Amino acid sequence: MATTPQYKYKYWTVQFPREHVAHVEINRPDKLNAFIQQMWLEMRQLFDQLSVDPRVRAIVLTGAGDRAFTAGLDVKAASTEIFGDKGGADTARKAIILRRYVLAFQDCLTAIERCEKTVICAMHGFAYGFAIDISSATDIRICTQDVQFAVKEVDIGMAADIGVLSRLPKIVGSYGWVKEVAISARIFGADEALRVGFVNAIHSSKAAAVQAALDLAGLIAQKSPVAVLGTKELLNYSRDHSINDGLRYTAVWNSGAIQTDDVPAALTSSMEKRVPTFEKL
Amino acid sequence: MATTPQYKYKYWTVQFPREHVAHVEINRPDKLNAFIQQMWLEMRQLFDQLSVDPRVRAIVLTGAGDRAFTAGLDVKAASTEIFGDKGGADTARKAIILRRYVLAFQDCLTAIERCEKTVICAMHGFAYGFAIDISSATDIRICTQDVQFAVKEVDIGMAADIGVLSRLPKIVGSYGWVKEVAISARIFGADEALRVGFVNAIHSSKAAAVQAALDLAGLIAQKSPVAVLGTKELLNYSRDHSINDGLRYTAVWNSGAIQTDDVPAALTSSMEKRVPTFEKL
Amino acid sequence: MATTPQYKYKYWTVQFPREHVAHVEINRPDKLNAFIQQMWLEMRQLFDQLSVDPRVRAIVLTGAGDRAFTAGLDVKAASTEIFGDKGGADTARKAIILRRYVLAFQDCLTAIERCEKTVICAMHGFAYGFAIDISSATDIRICTQDVQFAVKEVDIGMAADIGVLSRLPKIVGSYGWVKEVAISARIFGADEALRVGFVNAIHSSKAAAVQAALDLAGLIAQKSPVAVLGTKELLNYSRDHSINDGLRYTAVWNSGAIQTDDVPAALTSSMEKRVPTFEKL
Amino acid sequence: MATTPQYKYKYWTVQFPREHVAHVEINRPDKLNAFIQQMWLEMRQLFDQLSVDPRVRAIVLTGAGDRAFTAGLDVKAASTEIFGDKGGADTARKAIILRRYVLAFQDCLTAIERCEKTVICAMHGFAYGFAIDISSATDIRICTQDVQFAVKEVDIGMAADIGVLSRLPKIVGSYGWVKEVAISARIFGADEALRVGFVNAIHSSKAAAVQAALDLAGLIAQKSPVAVLGTKELLNYSRDHSINDGLRYTAVWNSGAIQTDDVPAALTSSMEKRVPTFEKL
Amino acid sequence: MATTPQYKYKYWTVQFPREHVAHVEINRPDKLNAFIQQMWLEMRQLFDQLSVDPRVRAIVLTGAGDRAFTAGLDVKAASTEIFGDKGGADTARKAIILRRYVLAFQDCLTAIERCEKTVICAMHGFAYGFAIDISSATDIRICTQDVQFAVKEVDIGMAADIGVLSRLPKIVGSYGWVKEVAISARIFGADEALRVGFVNAIHSSKAAAVQAALDLAGLIAQKSPVAVLGTKELLNYSRDHSINDGLRYTAVWNSGAIQTDDVPAALTSSMEKRVPTFEKL
Amino acid sequence: MATTPQYKYKYWTVQFPREHVAHVEINRPDKLNAFIQQMWLEMRQLFDQLSVDPRVRAIVLTGAGDRAFTAGLDVKAASTEIFGDKGGADTARKAIILRRYVLAFQDCLTAIERCEKTVICAMHGFAYGFAIDISSATDIRICTQDVQFAVKEVDIGMAADIGVLSRLPKIVGSYGWVKEVAISARIFGADEALRVGFVNAIHSSKAAAVQAALDLAGLIAQKSPVAVLGTKELLNYSRDHSINDGLRYTAVWNSGAIQTDDVPAALTSSMEKRVPTFEKL
Repeated sequence: MATTPQYKYKYWTVQFPREHVAHVEINRPDKLNAFIQQMWLEMRQLFDQLSVDPRVRAIVLTGAGDRAFTAGLDVKAASTEIFGDKGGADTARKAIILRRYVLAFQDCLTAIERCEKTVICAMHGFAYGFAIDISSATDIRICTQDVQFAVKEVDIGMAADIGVLSRLPKIVGSYGWVKEVAISARIFGADEALRVGFVNAIHSSKAAAVQAALDLAGLIAQKSPVAVLGTKELLNYSRDHSINDGLRYTAVWNSGAIQTDDVPAALTSSMEKRVPTFEKL
Repeated sequence: MATTPQYKYKYWTVQFPREHVAHVEINRPDKLNAFIQQMWLEMRQLFDQLSVDPRVRAIVLTGAGDRAFTAGLDVKAASTEIFGDKGGADTARKAIILRRYVLAFQDCLTAIERCEKTVICAMHGFAYGFAIDISSATDIRICTQDVQFAVKEVDIGMAADIGVLSRLPKIVGSYGWVKEVAISARIFGADEALRVGFVNAIHSSKAAAVQAALDLAGLIAQKSPVAVLGTKELLNYSRDHSINDGLRYTAVWNSGAIQTDDVPAALTSSMEKRVPTFEKL
Repeated sequence: MATTPQYKYKYWTVQFPREHVAHVEINRPDKLNAFIQQMWLEMRQLFDQLSVDPRVRAIVLTGAGDRAFTAGLDVKAASTEIFGDKGGADTARKAIILRRYVLAFQDCLTAIERCEKTVICAMHGFAYGFAIDISSATDIRICTQDVQFAVKEVDIGMAADIGVLSRLPKIVGSYGWVKEVAISARIFGADEALRVGFVNAIHSSKAAAVQAALDLAGLIAQKSPVAVLGTKELLNYSRDHSINDGLRYTAVWNSGAIQTDDVPAALTSSMEKRVPTFEKL
Repeated sequence: MATTPQYKYKYWTVQFPREHVAHVEINRPDKLNAFIQQMWLEMRQLFDQLSVDPRVRAIVLTGAGDRAFTAGLDVKAASTEIFGDKGGADTARKAIILRRYVLAFQDCLTAIERCEKTVICAMHGFAYGFAIDISSATDIRICTQDVQFAVKEVDIGMAADIGVLSRLPKIVGSYGWVKEVAISARIFGADEALRVGFVNAIHSSKAAAVQAALDLAGLIAQKSPVAVLGTKELLNYSRDHSINDGLRYTAVWNSGAIQTDDVPAALTSSMEKRVPTFEKL
Repeated sequence: MATTPQYKYKYWTVQFPREHVAHVEINRPDKLNAFIQQMWLEMRQLFDQLSVDPRVRAIVLTGAGDRAFTAGLDVKAASTEIFGDKGGADTARKAIILRRYVLAFQDCLTAIERCEKTVICAMHGFAYGFAIDISSATDIRICTQDVQFAVKEVDIGMAADIGVLSRLPKIVGSYGWVKEVAISARIFGADEALRVGFVNAIHSSKAAAVQAALDLAGLIAQKSPVAVLGTKELLNYSRDHSINDGLRYTAVWNSGAIQTDDVPAALTSSMEKRVPTFEKL
Repeated sequence: MATTPQYKYKYWTVQFPREHVAHVEINRPDKLNAFIQQMWLEMRQLFDQLSVDPRVRAIVLTGAGDRAFTAGLDVKAASTEIFGDKGGADTARKAIILRRYVLAFQDCLTAIERCEKTVICAMHGFAYGFAIDISSATDIRICTQDVQFAVKEVDIGMAADIGVLSRLPKIVGSYGWVKEVAISARIFGADEALRVGFVNAIHSSKAAAVQAALDLAGLIAQKSPVAVLGTKELLNYSRDHSINDGLRYTAVWNSGAIQTDDVPAALTSSMEKRVPTFEKL
């Protein structure tokens, strides 16, 4: 369970508690893990690195400390970062420079979605604003009983812009519910999140949630990495395309992927009733 | 709670029970609020007007009387309106003229969706056929315990054509359930509607549902109108586009929108723990 | 309730237990209805035939025997069929030939989706792997209390490729849940399937589920075939298109369809409170 | 060749020089037909009216006077119309109100595209800025030898916003050429316009161009209105969709349209070598 | 140059004049190669067969006889085939059955587009109506100097429905020109076809055109079949998708395809300045 | 005309020959500017930098030396880079790692397209393979009379994968021509490139082409940067979207952009007949 030396980030810790499983933690607990710019810049670098690290097959994402997954953007810092010296007095120039900022911020978040390895997010305590953006970019979400969620951006005078309004509806399916929580900015809890499909499971404490996430990650890490990676990619693709396009993309993907040695390895193991081992990826 | 004089419609009443909140009611209670052509023509005019009325920030939509939100199309009137003197004997000419009719009808309904202000629909009693089309074009739906819903069109020999088959699946997420209720035309109640995500909440009576809708509208009306309007627009856009397209559109939208004075106003109020006031829109 | 002679398939039985209702059964019970190539080739032929058979207005699909709807692909046979003499040693040639195979297999399954008549799937026992692909291509799914579902493909070293990763998310709405079951390959039961919207109802036994499916099919068979067929097609279209595109397609569809005699027939019957009869289609 | 009384517009004249052919002229020649708001508001009303006028089967669009099809927006008036009292000091509110203005303006132009009847545009003299927007929304463009075209908006400090950047590339096919003329705002003439496919033909004078346009309109007016209208709609649809979607939409469209009496009428006339006559539409 | 025995069609001849090159000819010269139903049913079967025939790497498509590539549909036969006993008196039932017919017809044509091997079409004489549909589904078109093209359908009272209105605009790029020829149904010749990009080259006679097509096919047949097949597929995909989607699909395609032995084979041959040979596909 | 110190790249030179104009040159002339990995990695960095450099309003891209714009990939180096130690023996693992490589390569090229400033490409001599990919990602292409173009990838056994098959057809409009040159890999010259719309102009020598490109860049650099940048972005967007989507995006873009001071500045300058100056961006 040693920390590997290569992952050196100021606001993120990375551990390897099980074989092929990385445990990533947002690490600014004294500020409720609120995000400043360096944190989301590091986030892109970190997930781009995990994506191609052959030791890693599944990732658990949590927030350090007892109180919060993350309270969202550090509003005070963000004011400066966003509204700092940007484009002078001209509205259009300001707009163009703000657009660069938003696109860069979005891309740092999309790093989680394009990460080839499965990402499981375990949330506890405060999970406001950017917390929903982040977790919506992961693959599977679980939470503690006491978590407090909110799509909070309306309460600071803006429509959420880093991805939650695009991704959240595709996760839960229901636009009616998303509109209500996004427009009212109201807090909702674990039970409601489970009912609408935002989270897959609820656990009694942060420790229990992390444990469950690691167990699931461990299970996934025993599967064929070719099969798991392909399943994530094909599901991400299908979300944004028609059925016909999904089928066409799948056929091309699998024309290469099913030539893998993992298929005979899995079949043989299955017949011999033992856990297969797969080559690194 | 005075009725404003500018909203003069034969089949629709408009009141302003709270600041920035319009309460719109379908008003043909002696016919269970069944729709004739004039009603849906007025509907477009009304929502186009509300959309740009700076007094209005949120809208509650209900049906007059005790018995029905709306029983749907007035089938007798519709027969004449639809099948009246249209295009003579030639099938293709009839088809082209029917298409014009359907497109015009659809556009009157789409007026609710493109209305810039949030629309909350509170339904009671009979809510058949066109009732589902209408409410599917609003942003948030609630209902009474005794409401009766049905996608009724199959029972008059036709596939629904004003929008429900396009919009309903995006609201509830589940195509399996939509297919069953749309093909069987069976009645379903409040509990089922809540379970599948068609409504966000159930209330004991029409009075209670209207009250709850006005409360939610009142809450929304206190938020930044720039933020609320943007959230509706971005969610509508995301529904019909890929994640990448959604992010790109969001970045452009917010490049102008986050230059608003509402952001500092909201932040200051938040720090000073008071309700902010926002300029009209 | 005679078996019609024209439907002669080795691995499929077809019966007509009610007027306008076909009962189709996967028929390889001694192998848990596991699929070999001939079975899915026959499946396309069968559903293409049912699609245009004027006697048929609704179809019930089940698996023969007590133990399984279907246990999925017959892995042993599939190995030969897929990995048999395909393209020699060159990776790219193998890929191109595997792509042909996958596209052909997908098309056989899509035959269920493009079948003009409503298909209701009643599942019991084992419903693994290809069982989820098949049922996801039907319109309405019900199951027994004891059914066991699993998106099993990851456990044989591959991402599912015949359609489940494209279709399942559109059925249940929630990508979070789909990712978990597809990546972990874990078994889930009837209650979970109902909660997420994969099935519309649960029944106590196979007999009860088949009975319920036939009842629903019988109900649908009494409706206007023009209206039912149009509803299926418009919902399939809307799934893959924006709201605007859905409305446009609907307007063209109905410009022809609402000229049907079924509309006046349905209206008259409704006023006279009797069950209408409709011309064959 | 009488002017029909129903078309009363301040800035547009409508004549019927031939059977089933309307000749529409932009009519503010003393200002080079430059557009003020009332003109484009009338434009929508006019084309919506022509679209469903059964006397009309083809439309020719020209600009009054000798000097210009249209010199584009009346920049002086537009400044007031666009930048007039719009939304006070707040950037976001101004943006939202400008967006309403642009959407309304765009919709007035789209009226030409959605007009069911074929529109042929004959351009002469100055054809700057909005002239390209307008003509890009028509179906067929011809011009005089001396015409001067320019996508002029960059020279007034803005990207063109009423449609030319969306429509022009689909007309000429070549993004390279469009980028050059749109970014440089340079003038180009008839020969270049013909070479890139922006216009279909060049004529020696305005009189000759109008004559040719009327001849083509007259030819079209002799064809089956069902066939002509369908061809316009299917080509507009195909422009914005994949081949598969185009085929699917076409199949539904023609399932109604080829039931027309025009098919046997056309076939019979063809065998009898006489010009068919078709019922009005 | 022997005719291979396996290609036995009543209305199509297949020859192998060069290694890896099939020469396919529409063979009903006494009727100007006009199409009856059996011909297009055979067309699907034929191109599906060529698609996977390892002897075939490029295909030349021509029309038998001196007078016509094809004069289009055999209108007399088509009347019976299309308007024959279809759906009785009810408009909607007729429409549904006509839709089946059109979809089946379209699919037979799409067989050319989905054929994995490059198809070069050489046209001479009359090339009306369905001739444009067919050639638009091929990859490369050349013609004789005396060819006469026309999108003829409007002259028989209908909008073209087998694909030309979807495919032709994507070939030539210019919607303006397509609208004119499709709405006016006028004849156009070789020079115009070359200018707008419909054909790639003009030859003096049928013999010369066939020779040139065979030469080009022969050249293509010497290239890596993996590379040629991939290029066709990726271009077909890109036509219907955004740049981003095109890049994504390409990356997956090539992740398998560039593992081919053809790359080193081509590189080595290139260095050694000799024509490479490639394994069959 | 000093080289600015900040642009330090091994294989790229950057000069500023005119105000607001950057001249970028591929700089490996002794190898015909053939690309190795470091070159395309630098290319992304360079264009990302130019995109936000306020000194830069237009960019000219050329190849150093007399002989070639670029001869394409350095095939020898590429073999190692692509086929070097990637993923061991397993086909699927190799495919996944190759996909990473292709996606990264594509992204480096897309940097030119997403560069906010207009890029004009002037090509001379050999312009093979990757030369077409690069130039297709720029906005405007010109060339010398003696240039030699080829989509060369088929001749090394692969379908082009860095973007040319996606972008080239959208530039020239004609899929027929693109298929021929991409499948045959034949060389084509300046005149053909001009005729199909691949280049906008031909010049007699490299010096003349560079001069013309700089002149055009200089002209663009005098325009409003807000207007020019918006025009590029809106044209790129429109290429990948329907007309309706294009209009919607345009309306949002311009709701912020037309608030710019450049509009009054441009109008005033125009009336006063002087060249306006615009604030940096």
